[in-house]
Amino acid sequence: MNNEWICQLQNKLNEDQCSMSSSEKYRHSHDESDHVPVEPDLVCFPESTEDVVAIVQIAQQAAIPITPFGAGSGLEGQSIPFKGGISLNFERMNKVIKFSPEDLLITVQPGITRLQLNHLINRHGLQFPIDPGADATIGGMVANNASGTTAVRYGVMRDQVIDLEIVLADGTRLHTGTKAKKSSSGYHLTGLFTGSEGTLGIITEITLKLHGISEHTIAASCTFETPHQCAEAAHMILLSGIPIQRMEFVDAYSISKVNRYGNYGLPEKHSLFFEFAGMKSAVEEEANLAKELIMDMNGENWRVAADSEERAMIWKARHEMAYAYRHQAGMTITGGDVCVPISKLPELIDYARELIVESGLEGGILGHIGDGNFHTAIAYDTTDPKQRLSAEYINEKLAYRAIKLEGTCTGEHGVGLGKMKYQDAEHGAAVAVMKNMKKMLDPSNLLNPGKIFT
Amino acid sequence: MNNEWICQLQNKLNEDQCSMSSSEKYRHSHDESDHVPVEPDLVCFPESTEDVVAIVQIAQQAAIPITPFGAGSGLEGQSIPFKGGISLNFERMNKVIKFSPEDLLITVQPGITRLQLNHLINRHGLQFPIDPGADATIGGMVANNASGTTAVRYGVMRDQVIDLEIVLADGTRLHTGTKAKKSSSGYHLTGLFTGSEGTLGIITEITLKLHGISEHTIAASCTFETPHQCAEAAHMILLSGIPIQRMEFVDAYSISKVNRYGNYGLPEKHSLFFEFAGMKSAVEEEANLAKELIMDMNGENWRVAADSEERAMIWKARHEMAYAYRHQAGMTITGGDVCVPISKLPELIDYARELIVESGLEGGILGHIGDGNFHTAIAYDTTDPKQRLSAEYINEKLAYRAIKLEGTCTGEHGVGLGKMKYQDAEHGAAVAVMKNMKKMLDPSNLLNPGKIFT
Ligand SMILES: Cc1cc2nc3c(=O)[nH]c(=O)nc-3n(C[C@H](O)[C@H](O)[C@H](O)COP(=O)(O)OP(=O)(O)OC[C@H]3O[C@@H](n4cnc5c(N)ncnc54)[C@H](O)[C@@H]3O)c2cc1C
Ligand SMILES: Cc1cc2nc3c(=O)[nH]c(=O)nc-3n(C[C@H](O)[C@H](O)[C@H](O)COP(=O)(O)OP(=O)(O)OC[C@H]3O[C@@H](n4cnc5c(N)ncnc54)[C@H](O)[C@@H]3O)c2cc1C
Repeated sequence: MNNEWICQLQNKLNEDQCSMSSSEKYRHSHDESDHVPVEPDLVCFPESTEDVVAIVQIAQQAAIPITPFGAGSGLEGQSIPFKGGISLNFERMNKVIKFSPEDLLITVQPGITRLQLNHLINRHGLQFPIDPGADATIGGMVANNASGTTAVRYGVMRDQVIDLEIVLADGTRLHTGTKAKKSSSGYHLTGLFTGSEGTLGIITEITLKLHGISEHTIAASCTFETPHQCAEAAHMILLSGIPIQRMEFVDAYSISKVNRYGNYGLPEKHSLFFEFAGMKSAVEEEANLAKELIMDMNGENWRVAADSEERAMIWKARHEMAYAYRHQAGMTITGGDVCVPISKLPELIDYARELIVESGLEGGILGHIGDGNFHTAIAYDTTDPKQRLSAEYINEKLAYRAIKLEGTCTGEHGVGLGKMKYQDAEHGAAVAVMKNMKKMLDPSNLLNPGKIFT
Repeated sequence: MNNEWICQLQNKLNEDQCSMSSSEKYRHSHDESDHVPVEPDLVCFPESTEDVVAIVQIAQQAAIPITPFGAGSGLEGQSIPFKGGISLNFERMNKVIKFSPEDLLITVQPGITRLQLNHLINRHGLQFPIDPGADATIGGMVANNASGTTAVRYGVMRDQVIDLEIVLADGTRLHTGTKAKKSSSGYHLTGLFTGSEGTLGIITEITLKLHGISEHTIAASCTFETPHQCAEAAHMILLSGIPIQRMEFVDAYSISKVNRYGNYGLPEKHSLFFEFAGMKSAVEEEANLAKELIMDMNGENWRVAADSEERAMIWKARHEMAYAYRHQAGMTITGGDVCVPISKLPELIDYARELIVESGLEGGILGHIGDGNFHTAIAYDTTDPKQRLSAEYINEKLAYRAIKLEGTCTGEHGVGLGKMKYQDAEHGAAVAVMKNMKKMLDPSNLLNPGKIFT
């Protein structure tokens, strides 16, 4: 390998901005998924957009791939430097560029995490509500179009972003939008770069909409006999028009897992978890209406969190589900991320349960039921290739069924390496347009190559 | 001119699907703007996606431009067939393809208008809330990324669309999305085609999110001494977190105009109009809080509409503003459509007023103040080129100032012919990417040529 480009980068950047240490290479070889790790040749830590431009230009000249790296919390191998080259880590680009509480806007660098961001703005009565569980970077969340528990109320990442600064493969620096709340000017590049997983350009600045923190919040939970009933109840709540803030489904199996992991003492039944937020009287009215609907549908164990501590506990338990499965020696998990029109959800959840039972593997179902989105968490023994295949088979069957039900193979985790094989089935003739776009913006295929399209 | 393509189209379609009558040519030569009319050579009325594909293929072969035509209510000349050729009128493609109240979704053909759509779904307790005043087609609203009075609550057209069927310039038919509420799969083509004004592809099917009709609605209005105070009050209401459904500003000048036009008897002062909607107790709480805030800021004439009739009257008056200006023999109007971060609004409104006063022309300011978006309506004598220039000068100064304030030259009306000259100033280096996208998707430049980019 001709390593002149490494010398060039080392000359261009400060010494501590380039690393070839084995620990850094290892750290940047994987994300939180079970995809096969690949090490980069070099890890770079840009400190400014100018650094990113310089790195991109040197990489372009030497035809070296660049894979941006956020917090590495992705679940589809998106930040794995599949073809080696440079892993571009944004942890030093984590500053607030401009905070405009008066406009409910903030401009940040991509490496800031969502908890860092909220820590800064919460004291101003503002929040950035998108919550993928992990403490992901805002850049990674934009690149994956992440969402999570609050999407049912606030939408997904793409709905929050009004402007991006992008560095293109050739080093061109551009803004995709303005700071106005809406615009009908030009083509919508903001939405295009959002969710493009670092394959079309590198994000160096992000302007986000902020939201006020609600005056009052109520968390509640209930249980049902079957996952099917949970899905039907969730559907009913949505149709009632209650502006629910969170509505999560966790099956009995996963509840028992997380109880053992964190000693939560939750009733070990198929459960729905709710959050209502807004002005006090409205929120109380909403929670009461939800309770009535739940009771009408034979829900049980309706429980309103007594205080903010219990409320926090509920969401902590929800967020620990994934870890609860992984927390078994020699075991790892893989998981689906299907999303369908809400009326198709009961059918698809039943199908997921069937597949898990058939496989003989341990697995749970949980998800953002208000969006029609759920995950399977299938545990398998990493030393047993047959188990791995069985787990993968569940994912595959579920993805194709979701597509058949007019849904998507990935509601929020993104394509990365794991969902590439479903792109043709899901997007048909549109795939050719997407590939042409990639070719147009990255003709040498150096930006996160090997992802999204086969 | 070689007219073989016309014969081919006449052979391919039914006789009544092609027209060269002078009345049809005239109808399709202009929209509601003051841009110079251009007649098409032929008007086609497709009845199916297959018809659209056939028309596109014949046009492609003969290198004939195609300009889609919705209701012709655009304000920037978007549907004017600037280079002649075919005007593609969608009035016969106005069917509902699939109504899924259980999923809060509907799939329609592009020619259905928003009133037709609401007429069909309101009886199911559902609404499609985006309201640009005019009874535009859904296809035209998607193509322009229209919005209007309710965007402050529901967002813009782009936020409502989850899937489009597109016919590309080469006749390829594709879907940009699925029927799932959210997805992180592939590139976001739905958002890209939305707002592309028929320049990237032709929309033949649209899947929209629907919303429940609120249990209770309150309309109210108040007045202030200056537009500046109105803007500040609007800003305060937004920061308070009240989930306002509509919040409109109309200056005193425009109020007097509409009073004379429709005999509304509104107080002839700078005014804000509000709508609150939701559950009864919540809405009442919100309206009271808004009133308190208004009073604290020295607002006057707080008035809550006594009944649904008075409520309808208020919004009718608001929607008639444009017509009130035009309703003068020999006069036409032109108008800006700037949108800026909400904190910059008072400054920009003051500037607009200055420009109008300086020009000596008659003009008002009104707009969707909750989004930071407002319009100027400048009346001028069509026979006086100097007046026309003065009016255009106001638009121009205002657009550049909005861009300087980190806003946009068009919040909702689109680019068309009128806002082309601001694209470089607003989008900078991104314009080259947009132009490449156009070239990639429409290499022969036959889809609505002469729009968006110079
Ligand atoms: C326990 C757990 C729960 C989770 N729950 C959810 C959930 O509910 N919803 C959800 O959506 N996700 C969830 N995730 C997945 C993950 O948190 C998200 O995908 C998140 O967006 C990843 O962000 P990251 O900063 O870790 O990015 P990484 O994983 O480091 O990278 C993700 C992608 O972004 C690209 N990227 C990063 N920075 C940039 C940049 N500056 N410019 C261009 N591209 C860039 C990378 O190249 C890569 O393609 C969960 C993960 C875990 C571990
Ligand atoms: C009194 C008045 C008030 C208005 N207020 C507002 C407002 O508040 N907010 C707002 O956003 N707008 C407003 N408008 C502008 C107008 O209503 C919108 O721009 C609307 O989107 C135009 O829709 P249309 O069906 O009339 O489309 P047209 O004007 O016919 O066409 C608009 C564009 O859409 C393209 N198009 C149409 N159909 C298709 C298709 N099937 N495929 C691809 N491209 C297509 C056309 O080629 C053209 O580029 C107002 C207009 C008037 C007259």
